[in-house]
Order: sequence, then structure tokens, then C-alpha cells
Amino acid sequence: MENFTFKNTTDIRFGKDRLETELQAAIAQFGPKVLVTYGGGSIKKSGLYERVIQALAGLDVTELSGIEPNPKIASVRAGQKLVKDNDIDVILAVGGGSVIDASKVIASAKFYDGDPWDLVLDSKKRFAIDQLPVVDILTLAATGTEMNTGSVISNPETKQKLGTGGPNTPSVSFLDPSLTFSVSKWQTAAGSIDIFSHLTEQYFDQKGYENDVRNGLIEGIMRTVIKWAPVALREPDNYDARANLMWASTMALNGLPRTGNVNSWSVHPIEHELSAYYDITHGVGLGILTPHWLDFIYSADTKPYFVSLGRNVWDLAGDDDAVATQTIAKTREWLASLEVPTTLPGVGIETDQDFEAMAKSAVQVNHLDHNAFVKMTVADVRNLLEASMK
Amino acid sequence: MENFTFKNTTDIRFGKDRLETELQAAIAQFGPKVLVTYGGGSIKKSGLYERVIQALAGLDVTELSGIEPNPKIASVRAGQKLVKDNDIDVILAVGGGSVIDASKVIASAKFYDGDPWDLVLDSKKRFAIDQLPVVDILTLAATGTEMNTGSVISNPETKQKLGTGGPNTPSVSFLDPSLTFSVSKWQTAAGSIDIFSHLTEQYFDQKGYENDVRNGLIEGIMRTVIKWAPVALREPDNYDARANLMWASTMALNGLPRTGNVNSWSVHPIEHELSAYYDITHGVGLGILTPHWLDFIYSADTKPYFVSLGRNVWDLAGDDDAVATQTIAKTREWLASLEVPTTLPGVGIETDQDFEAMAKSAVQVNHLDHNAFVKMTVADVRNLLEASMK
Repeated sequence: MENFTFKNTTDIRFGKDRLETELQAAIAQFGPKVLVTYGGGSIKKSGLYERVIQALAGLDVTELSGIEPNPKIASVRAGQKLVKDNDIDVILAVGGGSVIDASKVIASAKFYDGDPWDLVLDSKKRFAIDQLPVVDILTLAATGTEMNTGSVISNPETKQKLGTGGPNTPSVSFLDPSLTFSVSKWQTAAGSIDIFSHLTEQYFDQKGYENDVRNGLIEGIMRTVIKWAPVALREPDNYDARANLMWASTMALNGLPRTGNVNSWSVHPIEHELSAYYDITHGVGLGILTPHWLDFIYSADTKPYFVSLGRNVWDLAGDDDAVATQTIAKTREWLASLEVPTTLPGVGIETDQDFEAMAKSAVQVNHLDHNAFVKMTVADVRNLLEASMK
Repeated sequence: MENFTFKNTTDIRFGKDRLETELQAAIAQFGPKVLVTYGGGSIKKSGLYERVIQALAGLDVTELSGIEPNPKIASVRAGQKLVKDNDIDVILAVGGGSVIDASKVIASAKFYDGDPWDLVLDSKKRFAIDQLPVVDILTLAATGTEMNTGSVISNPETKQKLGTGGPNTPSVSFLDPSLTFSVSKWQTAAGSIDIFSHLTEQYFDQKGYENDVRNGLIEGIMRTVIKWAPVALREPDNYDARANLMWASTMALNGLPRTGNVNSWSVHPIEHELSAYYDITHGVGLGILTPHWLDFIYSADTKPYFVSLGRNVWDLAGDDDAVATQTIAKTREWLASLEVPTTLPGVGIETDQDFEAMAKSAVQVNHLDHNAFVKMTVADVRNLLEASMK
């Protein structure tokens, strides 16, 4: 097993009916000046906005609204101005992965005088400066940002969608499953696929596989998502379904599933190209690409991974070859059952005109040609994108 | 799923060859005056003591040696005097669960002027005072103390062995599997059983079972221990076996496997009575009691837990009744395969003269009659002890 370091200080407040009694103190411990960040109007429609503002009574509240899915650097720039102008003490992010991701970079940008896109391009700059504490109220089970240091920020001008890491995870994360009852079928499916993809990206690792605690954890979270995503689609108000998906999202990307890992991810950087060029829903893009990627990495060398997944996640029995093949088929079948498109034309990508540029960028950004689980050349990525056309 | 709070700030440094480059800074961040605590002479024989002292060069080192298995309050009292007299900044615990457990209470006792047994009897007193940071170098995979707030301290005068919680987990834990190559077969088996018992105590919970991420995590760690304990017994220098057991020990009791739980534990408080009266090895005692406890809790109501364990941990197939019954048989078989005694006479307990007093105390200490997974009366505990005689 490889050496690893693990430290994650996020204070998780999981469950319902906690904001009224706990939010004020969770914020006030960092000071009175809070920037509340959110997306479109959905938190106003649902009544969450009112609950939050009431819970913050007596504190000095500034607001940044309109943070979009696939959050744009423009929102971060606007937030940077607000945290500097108002000498903000703490950010309260209310929303899904996009709002929290943007808030983490805004939290660093308070201490940076240049354009915050510099911080996205070079994460090292963020480790050299301070970062405001971020408290969040999660409204979508998907990215895992509620318990990690990462963000993904898009720059439409440069057609880039890039991951960036900061020094700190959120200080406090309120995870109330009932806040996700109103999440649409589309976003529920996309979020579940995002969680599942985080798990496959980490499961397939040339060294991490020696860590059986990690294997068991990943397999257990996979079983959770496979079981509960269809339930949440059928019964959006099913608390246990929403709760299991939410805790799965958090646990899938808080550092534990990659203890002992050495490889960089493959599917996410390719999907980031699709979202950067076409602004498609991240999770749906991952679902389209994943089965083709599994086909690509399958070989005699990698068969043991597929066999373990088949037996421990998909409850398959029989000889190894059959189990391995069925594992890919089962994955494809489950993804298709979630009622979101399974091809690129299904999300409006009708032409391969940008595939070469996308493939080059994906390989370069994540070193796919030398640090992926199974190395990928530009041609390999292009082929994977072509295969995803049908 | 029940609401829960989870926060664990321990900085885990997992793997080999890290002390020389990382220990000095890990200690010095808290100040120059360090109390090094350890047990008998084994860390001197193995060369670990020398490595530690060299890594601490330039710091102001005080030592407390002789902390015994089932650590006694006398060691804590001696430690309290040392941390006060030398105005210690940080404790470095080098050893297994006993050394680390005692060190956590010593860390609180610096800020308490009375007898530290008061702090064990009433954990609330510890939350009202400060606690020195504890850094540890773990030499035995067993108790999980390296990533939690708990300690178990014995008082031979009062025949009590009690759990106590403090405000903080260890600040930094160095988990080097190669330091456990020299652990005896007896202690390797006892440690593995301790890990396994932590998992069963948490798995059987009337509410926690709704959390499938938790279920998957526990089942995965169980599979890890079941697979690797026999390997470590056969090949004490097998790094992957020692590494998997060590990370299993840490993950089995760091708060994650009890997210959403409501019941108090059953087997541990009963075993604590055995150790308090007869000073037997904790893990061996747990292994003797556990199969009888599984027999006791098995019913139509609890069958689903046994079926899940059978399918997800023991790879059993067939109808539910057969799987559930086989789960208990498989557990008994695995425990017996570890080559430690499976009856109370096997550890020198030949008489039931103290069973009534032990049963009364266990029920009272852990509220077994109203908060256990399956409630236990004094008579139930007595029967369980009697059943463990053969």
C-alpha cells in the first residue's frame, strides 16, 4: 500500500431542522460580516432564502446571487470585489456544487489583488495566501465539494473549465436531505452519475487497489447510489433516498476513497472539455462518457478490478470473464435507466468539429498520456468522443 | 436516517519512513516541551525509541515509561505530575492503544488539579477544561484510539475499567505498518478481533442501519480484517497485511461507522468487566463473548442484519434463514481460526463467582437494559457469561 496523508476538518451537520438552532453560531464564530452566495431564484421560491436570512439576524449580511451551473469566472470576480469592499469575515454558500465551488475561490480571492482567474490557472498561488472560512448549506447531492478543497471554474472566453484546489475544506457543511426534495429528475440523475463517476475514477488506480478499506468504502458507496438514485427519481420526497445520496456525495470525494492512489482521473477532464465547449450538465456528460471509457480500459491486466466490482457491487456470480463483461453491461444499463441522454447528440452535440482540440486539451490538463490509470493519447480521447456519438 | 454531526481533525500520516522527515515538525508546531510516553521495553528493543529520540533532537524531552496493557490510573497520575511539573506543551505517545489512551487523559489532567480518576468517572469534567495536543506513533492495530477521542482506563483498587471521552482526537497520528511486524501472534489476533468487534457493535444499531454508506463502510472494513488477519498471523512481515489491518483499525472507530447510530454498545462493556476483574487481553475477551452475543440478539426482527452481513461480508448465498444462521457460524469459525482461546476457562477464568457483580456493573455502566441494540437484563448478561464458559 502506498503512503498517504489524510486530514479533513470539515464539521458536518447532517440532517433536517438544524438551521434555526445552529446556523447563527456556525457563522458568528468567524465574525459578523458574512457574504451569502447563491444561484438563481430557486432558494427564494423554496423558502430557504427566508430561513437563512432569519437565522442570520443581527449579522452584517452582503449578498452575491446569480452564480450559474458550471460557475463562471465572472461570478468569482464579482465576489472578489464584494469580499474586499465589505471586508467580509466568512462566506455562507447556499446551493449546489457550483455555488460552493465559486465561493471557495472567492474566499481565496479576498487575499489576492490580481484577477482571480490567475488562482484557477495556478492553484499554488492559493496555498501562498489566506482563505476566508466557507460555511455551506448544500441543496444538491453531486459534487462532494461540501467536504473537499476543490472547485471547478469555467472561463467562456478561453473555453476552459479547470479544477483548482485550495488550502481548506469548508469549515461547516449543513447537509439537509429535505432541501433536495425539489431537485428535478434531470439534476437528480446528473448528480447521482457525478457521484458514481467520482467513485469509478478513484476505484481504478494502479496502487490504491491494494487498500482494501478503500475498496470496501468505494464499493459500499457505489451500492448506495445504485440503490437509491432510482428511488429518488420515482419518489422525490423520499427522505432516506435523498439522505443516502447526500451522504454518498460527501463521502465519495472527501479524500478517503483515494487513500493510497497514484493515478490522475480520466473521464472528468474529458467531460470538462464538453462542458467548456457546450455548457452541458456535467453529470450527464460523465454518464455518456463512462461506459466507453470502461470499454477502453478493459484488458487482461485490468480485469481483476472489473471482477471485484461485479461481485461486490453488482452482485454478479460466475466465472471471472463473464463477471467482468457483465459489470460493464450492468453499468451501462443502470446509467441508461436514469432517463438522461446516453449519447452526445442527445445533449445537442451533433458534430465532431471540436473533438481534436478537446482531446488535446484533456490530455494536457490531466497528463492522461502518462499518469492516467490506462494511459490515453489524443487519438484515444478522440476515439472515445467519437464512440459517444452513438 | 438519523441526524448526526461528524468532525474529525486528526492529521493521518500513513506509511513507512516518515518519522525522520516529519516527526520533529509535527511536535514542534505545539512547542518545545514534549512528554514522550511508552510502555515496556519493546520500543527500545526494536530500535524505535532511538529513532524517536533522534528525530526530537533539540526539543526538551521528558519521559513516562511503563504504561501497561489495560492502562491503569496510576500511570495517568504519574503523567499528570510530569506534565504539570515540566509545563509540557505536547505529548508524544509511542505505542498501542494503552499508551495512547493514557496519554489522552494525561493531556486533560494537566489542566485539572484533583485526582485524574475524577475525569474518568465524569467525562463532562474534561470538556470544561483544556487538553494538551497528543501526537502518536502507533505500534499496534487494534483500538482505533489513534483517530478518536476515547480512552479506557482501569482502576484495580475499585475493579473498574471505564471508557472516557475527551474534547479532542490526536492532533497527528503516524501509522507505520512496518512498526507492527514484531507484534506477536497473540496480540495480532487480539487486535484484529478488537477491530472486528468495533464493527459489529456499530453495525447492529436500530437506526444506523438506514445509512447505506455506513453499512458499506463497515462491511468493507470487516472484509478487510477477515482477509488480512490470517495473513498477518502466517506472515508477520507482510506489509500489505499489516497496512490493511492498521488502516482498518483507524477507520473502524473514527466516527464514520456510527453516523446515524443511536444504540449503546453491548459486548465491550461486558468485556471491560472481565478485564477489570481478571486483567485478560481485551481483544481475546471480545472474541470469546461475541458469538454468544450474536446468538443472543438473533431473532426474526434482527434477521435482516445477519442476512446483509452474510451476503456482503461472508459471501453467502441461498435463502435468508440459511444465510443468517451461517453468518453466525462463519463468524465463530473465523474467530476460532485466529488461534486464541474461545472460552473463559481458556483465559484462566474458571469460576462464575463474580458473574453477578460483573453483569450488574455492565448493565449499569452502558445502560444495556434500555439503550442496547437488543436490551439486556442482568440475567441476560449472566447467561452470556455462563455460555462463554464452554
